[in-house]
Amino acid sequence: MTLLSCFELGIIDALRETPGMTAAKLGAAVGAKPDSVEQLLFLLVKEGFVAYDEGSGAYSLDALAGVAKADLQRALTYMNMIKVVALRQLFYLTDSARTGALVGLKELYGSEGTLYGAVAEHKDLRESWATLMDAVTARIDPWFFDNIDIPAGAQVLDLAGNTGLGAIHAYKLKASPGLRVTTFDLPEKEDECLANFRKHGVAEHCSFIGGDVFEGVPEGFDVVLIKHFLDMFDKDDVFKILESVNRSLQVGGQVKILVPVYPENIKDSDNYNVDFFPAFFIGCTMGQGGPQKLSTYRRWLEECGFTVTKTVVKNPADIPPDVIPVPAVLCATKDPH
Amino acid sequence: MTLLSCFELGIIDALRETPGMTAAKLGAAVGAKPDSVEQLLFLLVKEGFVAYDEGSGAYSLDALAGVAKADLQRALTYMNMIKVVALRQLFYLTDSARTGALVGLKELYGSEGTLYGAVAEHKDLRESWATLMDAVTARIDPWFFDNIDIPAGAQVLDLAGNTGLGAIHAYKLKASPGLRVTTFDLPEKEDECLANFRKHGVAEHCSFIGGDVFEGVPEGFDVVLIKHFLDMFDKDDVFKILESVNRSLQVGGQVKILVPVYPENIKDSDNYNVDFFPAFFIGCTMGQGGPQKLSTYRRWLEECGFTVTKTVVKNPADIPPDVIPVPAVLCATKDPH
Repeated sequence: MTLLSCFELGIIDALRETPGMTAAKLGAAVGAKPDSVEQLLFLLVKEGFVAYDEGSGAYSLDALAGVAKADLQRALTYMNMIKVVALRQLFYLTDSARTGALVGLKELYGSEGTLYGAVAEHKDLRESWATLMDAVTARIDPWFFDNIDIPAGAQVLDLAGNTGLGAIHAYKLKASPGLRVTTFDLPEKEDECLANFRKHGVAEHCSFIGGDVFEGVPEGFDVVLIKHFLDMFDKDDVFKILESVNRSLQVGGQVKILVPVYPENIKDSDNYNVDFFPAFFIGCTMGQGGPQKLSTYRRWLEECGFTVTKTVVKNPADIPPDVIPVPAVLCATKDPH
Repeated sequence: MTLLSCFELGIIDALRETPGMTAAKLGAAVGAKPDSVEQLLFLLVKEGFVAYDEGSGAYSLDALAGVAKADLQRALTYMNMIKVVALRQLFYLTDSARTGALVGLKELYGSEGTLYGAVAEHKDLRESWATLMDAVTARIDPWFFDNIDIPAGAQVLDLAGNTGLGAIHAYKLKASPGLRVTTFDLPEKEDECLANFRKHGVAEHCSFIGGDVFEGVPEGFDVVLIKHFLDMFDKDDVFKILESVNRSLQVGGQVKILVPVYPENIKDSDNYNVDFFPAFFIGCTMGQGGPQKLSTYRRWLEECGFTVTKTVVKNPADIPPDVIPVPAVLCATKDPH
């Protein structure tokens, strides 16, 4: 929060524009007392983000001067999301773990249900959350579709496909004659989804089916995409989803899964996914869920009647250091009985 | 919060009593879903607090097994204080820095003023804060009095001495014939302070004067103690306090100051005081203030008419790693004009 606050106050922008300002000048420029500016900047000096000249009392950007704008924007989007969606909510983590409900969301927003419901009602949550998720999807979807095959002319179902963005990406990135992609999600998503298909010029090739994954998955599809979804649930619900998808497919039918994974060696100290996700899922977004290891998802798929044909974990070296999830692709086909 | 939650849920106590429990057994024992227990424990396994046996799924205490009870209690007191007094409040840090007011305390508790006012009204804040502060005072006061001289028979004023604990410590640890210690604080502290003097059998040697430091400091004292106080204010108020104390003293009169200090080298990465205090003071306790370097306090004392006669900074190696402040003692005497 100290770092984010220096951005929110406008201190960093002021220093970018006018290097060499003192705490007194910065305070006047951003509308805060110089003493507070000085206190907050101690940490940024310690960490080498900002430089301080003891003699003149002048501050200037240090490491922050060299961060590309897009990188900075992405990191700030993450920091803002953590502030808005997680910081206060985590006060109630213990109660959330006990009850399986988002006690923080209830206390702070009067909201029942999950974050996905709350974002529809609350602008601050929506702006903070949607901005991040759009950025994540834009970055990860191309990588996902690069790593999966979709047979020419396949009938594809995008499970829990929200308002159609995944279907649009699927059609555009894997186009083939006869390819058809159907978004499956709650009926209230239909209008916005169909509007999105028209806006992106894919209305001829994409369609929508309304329903609830936990009440059954539509049949007649060759490939089911399950993106950003399994990590939202505890094991019993993951099994319900995978078994339901399995029942909907013919033998040999395929699933293509995109999911964040924990490292196989949980003690890997370079990986901070287990620092973040358990509290985030249990206390802030779902009241349950959280990623698993790739080997766990592999085992669960096999226990639900699939043969895993391919797995890919994104190389952590290719993920910017401010981005938390390490995504994986699992491809599997439905076993004969 | 993930670590603290594992304590709050009772997971750590359960494992201490019955090592080798699985997530299923732990979940049943503490009243949480095994999936959530497993998710939260990932981080504790990563950090080596808890051990996990992959084959049997059994958890047991790892490093936590070897932590002495008193050490653990102290660290948990800190963690609880940070949760209750700081976690949610820091969401509003930027607004607090802009306004110099504790916006988080207002939003969350409807409380105007500082944390010191709010603890009187709100039990959760008081329990969390007072428990920590009592532990801090019990640990630091003996070190402070070890490092200062008080002339035999001196008349001592404990500035902003609250309900008398500092005066009691001063009398007991520095007793001499004729020594008299007076607590100076807001008039509403008088009854509790005098009751404390009686309870500790020092009523003959200790007294109370009601007043406000910013409206004047009583005269006639040889030594003024200023403990845990200067760090609560911005420079202009620190100067008001020091100048007011200076005016109250005869030439050669002494001040003995206890205050947390930042390291002289702000970039010292072993020291995390600048990580914690700026946000804590500005966003959670005062809406202003924060420690300074020892050299800054020295300079300020000199600018306010004192000669610094002695400084001691507690050796960080003697401070348990979970304790944040690094305390310092500054002794000074009033200059001739």
